[in-house]
Amino acid sequence: MLTLYAAAGTCSLATAIALEEASAKYDLHKMDFAGGEQRTPEFLAKNPKGRVPALVTDQGILTENVAILAYISQMYPEAHLAPRDPFGFAEMQALNAYFASTVHVNHAHRVRWYRWSDDEAAGKTMQAKVPETMNGCFKILEAQFKGPWIMGQQFTTADGYLFIFEGWAAKDGVNLADYPKLADHYKRMGERPAVKAALAKHG
Amino acid sequence: MLTLYAAAGTCSLATAIALEEASAKYDLHKMDFAGGEQRTPEFLAKNPKGRVPALVTDQGILTENVAILAYISQMYPEAHLAPRDPFGFAEMQALNAYFASTVHVNHAHRVRWYRWSDDEAAGKTMQAKVPETMNGCFKILEAQFKGPWIMGQQFTTADGYLFIFEGWAAKDGVNLADYPKLADHYKRMGERPAVKAALAKHG
Repeated sequence: MLTLYAAAGTCSLATAIALEEASAKYDLHKMDFAGGEQRTPEFLAKNPKGRVPALVTDQGILTENVAILAYISQMYPEAHLAPRDPFGFAEMQALNAYFASTVHVNHAHRVRWYRWSDDEAAGKTMQAKVPETMNGCFKILEAQFKGPWIMGQQFTTADGYLFIFEGWAAKDGVNLADYPKLADHYKRMGERPAVKAALAKHG
Repeated sequence: MLTLYAAAGTCSLATAIALEEASAKYDLHKMDFAGGEQRTPEFLAKNPKGRVPALVTDQGILTENVAILAYISQMYPEAHLAPRDPFGFAEMQALNAYFASTVHVNHAHRVRWYRWSDDEAAGKTMQAKVPETMNGCFKILEAQFKGPWIMGQQFTTADGYLFIFEGWAAKDGVNLADYPKLADHYKRMGERPAVKAALAKHG
């Protein structure tokens, strides 16, 4: 049995989408981030990094979307959520790694700038640059988008992860309408039953 | 044939180590980062992100260490650079994703703070926090280290990636001696023929 530790409004939604797309059975543990549940000894024993997503499996606990999304695609092969050849799989992992290490990091300088500076004035300068860095990412993603899904004909875990940043775009100073392929992707993603289910449960 | 686009002193060394450990045949294209080669139209056509590593394969170009390391482990299975079961593979990917999206990002606030702020004073506050954030990462990694390699008995691509941050530790305000398992790992990594070869070629 799987239990997903998640928090509304965070990137653990990407994991919830993949689980729904895979028709996986899972429990959802919605964490109280505002109340600091991620810093409790109980949760830090599960994930010392104090972050979500964390996926409790029968074999142990997995963290990091990049790893969890690959795991779900391999455990539910009938859902075809990832290319199976090493090159195609690596292309999906490259997208997911870019989301985690560049796109999400740029976004985080708006909402969690204090991770990298103790100075509020510095934080404001970081927040001011987020529209520039995020539009830089969206330009690259729009150019790379193959259609109908980001990797082409196959819907993959990268589509669910991309959906997170499309949803955050407006607050990050990105006008999604400037990126027509991504704007259309966001709309079509929102119509998928699995995405609707994930949003309803996860938030 | 593989061609690795790399730059001395950067994290593309993790890819070079994996290629050497796999006894892969590859060409090394050492980039002139100081001269701005990563921003030339020729390189941006290969990798619009303007970063290394980029691995040119017969099927196309792969970016992001997290993706490339998994690809090398799958293309050279006889080198046993990754667990083959989905859970073990995901555990390795979780480590590599943590290196890319948290550890490397924290380090980058010392040397490339200008990615996230245009303000030099803000940059100084970011640099000042790097020892705190990096020691936080090293504490987590020391606790997670199983030995003799980070995942236990099996040497994996995560060991080569970890080696990068161990090598940067002193400049990032981390006294490696405070983390005896990692200090010993760094020493033993440096004695591996593949690591010596990668360092000699890559720098």
